[in-house]
Amino acid sequence: MGNLYKELKEYEQSDFYPFHMPGHKRHMQTMPMNHSYQIDITEIDGFDNLHHAEGVLQLAMQRAAKLYQSDETYFLVNGSTGGILSAISAVVGKRGKLLLARNSHKSAFNAVLLRELEPIFIYPELEEEFSISGGIRSEDVADALAKHSDIQAVFITSPTYDGIVSDVESIAKIVHDRGIPLIVDEAHGAHFGFHPFFPQNSVHCKADIVIHSVHKTLPALTQSALLHVNGEIVDRGKLHKYLSIYQTSSPSYVLMASVDECISILEKGRELLFTQLQDNLEEFHRASHVLKNIRILGQEVIGHAGIKDIDKGKIVISVKDTTINGQQMNQILLREYHLQMEMAAPDYVLAIVTIMDTREGLHRLSGALMEIDKKIKKNLNPVDTGNLLENHMGFMKNTELKRRLYETQDGETEQVLLLESRSRVSCEFVYLYPPGIPILVPGEVIQDTFLALILNYRQQGFSIFGPVDDSLQTIRVIKELFYN
Amino acid sequence: MGNLYKELKEYEQSDFYPFHMPGHKRHMQTMPMNHSYQIDITEIDGFDNLHHAEGVLQLAMQRAAKLYQSDETYFLVNGSTGGILSAISAVVGKRGKLLLARNSHKSAFNAVLLRELEPIFIYPELEEEFSISGGIRSEDVADALAKHSDIQAVFITSPTYDGIVSDVESIAKIVHDRGIPLIVDEAHGAHFGFHPFFPQNSVHCKADIVIHSVHKTLPALTQSALLHVNGEIVDRGKLHKYLSIYQTSSPSYVLMASVDECISILEKGRELLFTQLQDNLEEFHRASHVLKNIRILGQEVIGHAGIKDIDKGKIVISVKDTTINGQQMNQILLREYHLQMEMAAPDYVLAIVTIMDTREGLHRLSGALMEIDKKIKKNLNPVDTGNLLENHMGFMKNTELKRRLYETQDGETEQVLLLESRSRVSCEFVYLYPPGIPILVPGEVIQDTFLALILNYRQQGFSIFGPVDDSLQTIRVIKELFYN
Repeated sequence: MGNLYKELKEYEQSDFYPFHMPGHKRHMQTMPMNHSYQIDITEIDGFDNLHHAEGVLQLAMQRAAKLYQSDETYFLVNGSTGGILSAISAVVGKRGKLLLARNSHKSAFNAVLLRELEPIFIYPELEEEFSISGGIRSEDVADALAKHSDIQAVFITSPTYDGIVSDVESIAKIVHDRGIPLIVDEAHGAHFGFHPFFPQNSVHCKADIVIHSVHKTLPALTQSALLHVNGEIVDRGKLHKYLSIYQTSSPSYVLMASVDECISILEKGRELLFTQLQDNLEEFHRASHVLKNIRILGQEVIGHAGIKDIDKGKIVISVKDTTINGQQMNQILLREYHLQMEMAAPDYVLAIVTIMDTREGLHRLSGALMEIDKKIKKNLNPVDTGNLLENHMGFMKNTELKRRLYETQDGETEQVLLLESRSRVSCEFVYLYPPGIPILVPGEVIQDTFLALILNYRQQGFSIFGPVDDSLQTIRVIKELFYN
Repeated sequence: MGNLYKELKEYEQSDFYPFHMPGHKRHMQTMPMNHSYQIDITEIDGFDNLHHAEGVLQLAMQRAAKLYQSDETYFLVNGSTGGILSAISAVVGKRGKLLLARNSHKSAFNAVLLRELEPIFIYPELEEEFSISGGIRSEDVADALAKHSDIQAVFITSPTYDGIVSDVESIAKIVHDRGIPLIVDEAHGAHFGFHPFFPQNSVHCKADIVIHSVHKTLPALTQSALLHVNGEIVDRGKLHKYLSIYQTSSPSYVLMASVDECISILEKGRELLFTQLQDNLEEFHRASHVLKNIRILGQEVIGHAGIKDIDKGKIVISVKDTTINGQQMNQILLREYHLQMEMAAPDYVLAIVTIMDTREGLHRLSGALMEIDKKIKKNLNPVDTGNLLENHMGFMKNTELKRRLYETQDGETEQVLLLESRSRVSCEFVYLYPPGIPILVPGEVIQDTFLALILNYRQQGFSIFGPVDDSLQTIRVIKELFYN
């Protein structure tokens, strides 16, 4: 037995409870498909071909389309990444203009890079109460489209990793007034639209392409996703072409069967499963009312900072203005309570809760929070979080693309010390993972505020990725110097 | 339960024997990892990050590197496709020149398209005895490099789908003399180098990048693969960057664990397993000596048509010059004997045999062949295969790229009837699947010989893919007309 499998199996048998992806939560009682090798075949007679589906896979994708009420649905086996690369490649011509929400996943920026696009950025607001990133305002979309008449498509992310939902319906109307398509990266909202406790999904809100990571918040295996297409604006031939470029010609039947299983579970049990989830979450929130120092993000943020709605399947557990920070909270939950969160941010930790979670799991979480809440205090002069997200978002808004992303890739570049990289133009992405949203994009100027931000994140123990130099002692920049 | 899973499970319980990928052959006695959801997690504490490996995944990849004796090895979760796109993108600059074997998988051509490369094609010879595609000659590589001094990399496929091995060592020497890298798509030869019964692998033959579909001929799950890097020519930073562009940011731990399991099985058991496989195959070949009409491809082809060696794990069962063709043979084996082949070609069927095959499985195959052999006859005037492969390869050699692949993608195009597409420049790929090698590439002129070939393939019941119009009644061509 290999080490990886051994460690995975040992972990599975431990008492660590997963408040993280994948959405199936390794909850085997309700997952009938308990196999891997036995059902792992290839495109033999009778088992169709994902890239040219006309049999059992076509039927499976049609059932998924029916469930989500989309015109057409594709199974994805290279994650939402493959869907995002394909969607952007299909709707924006080479070197064309894309209106892109700056808080998108790096795969959207990679599509910009590969297709040599000119990105026009729009930015979410800052929700100050909780120090989280807000929604994308439809007015901002309208303004950008008015300013750049040659934008070929709009790409936004809703919900965000933290569960912030933008007003997709209004944005879709504005985008469609220009006759161009709206792509919504709804990777974190594959569970939307099945129950009134959760927001409507973006298929319903008339987005042209919607991408769903079924593995994130629904019971499907990691790396599986769905892409929905609607309306007449998107050239489906082109979309199909790119899906078969960016995805393997040997797609896994284990992954595809897991998506199909997920669709079956929803077809039959969604009413009951989502009602149970609602009950569990409402019980959790009632129990959390006693918390004095820890705060749970709730509906009070709706209407501020471009926030149309929130995803109640994500529990944002804020320790802002207390004596501990997000990283410390994460460690306490993990080490003392064996509760594994999805993510730690400077001021909060994030728990993902799905239809596969148990009442007992949520009891463990609320119990842990009540104990921790008593041990920490309010701290009205916090020094170590230092408005990290405010600086982060402020920095992103104040950057300027000196070069398009692709222009930094094949020209003359050099590797310089990060601390000596001020005013240079980066050739590399820099991002926190999770969530994988670039802080710095190739082509952007490295500013003091960026360097301060990175040092601050590093001090707080966050993992920073992107540059070839994993340690981020150095960064690759273009050779040419700019003075401004 | 979903339909797909149900059908997969029913198939698994049937008596159909798999002479096809994946290489694990659903042979559960020797595969300890019998789970999917339970071990499917995400990048939580202690489980590393494929794109920034420094823990359990790094160790697993280092063990794979040690086994293959490569400098560095990456696990791939988007199949060999993701590895091929990344390898080519990393070693050839935008719009650069790539020397590309014309019998490569479409993912190599997709890399040419995405990176806007100028491909210089080299062609395998035709092995006439068996009507199969031969190897790539080192002289042809040398000639092409002499003619085009600005070629930045060489890409070849060895072994082919049929098991034809080129002289990679000689080719590597020639390529390295120019200081450029050699990429070998050894997707079909992940089992090479472990036993003298099989050829050495291309890592040993000094290729700079070697891509192995571990799922094809070794016991690993479909969609998993390895990429090995050697020497100092390849910029590993760039390679790593492209691997994280073309592969999902949510890689499957089930797929990665299955690669790790495969490495463990080889570490411990390769001597015994490959010796058993040798015994089984030798027994099969002895039994096949009685065949009068069916022929099994053997070592007699070595030394002809650029063939350096053959992969004995692939059984090419030729019905050339008999009263049946490959498609008919395939149907007889499937319907009457429940033996599922990997592929039917015009003149032969292909069986893939791995260390997970059983002696009984091979007995069933040799028994079936003996029975069928008695029912068919020699036919010295075969009409219906019509030298299909000869025409196929002849056509490919006589095509000319009127436009580079990418130039056909964003310009003015039109959809025309296939039968009226003569002399037009295609915007689409046309290929048989399997094996997924393009017959026609975007930018190539549609000739009468191509149309005749397609009609002939279609008549014989082959699946032809590529164009958006799945039925291939129409094809997309560029609007501009060429007269020559």
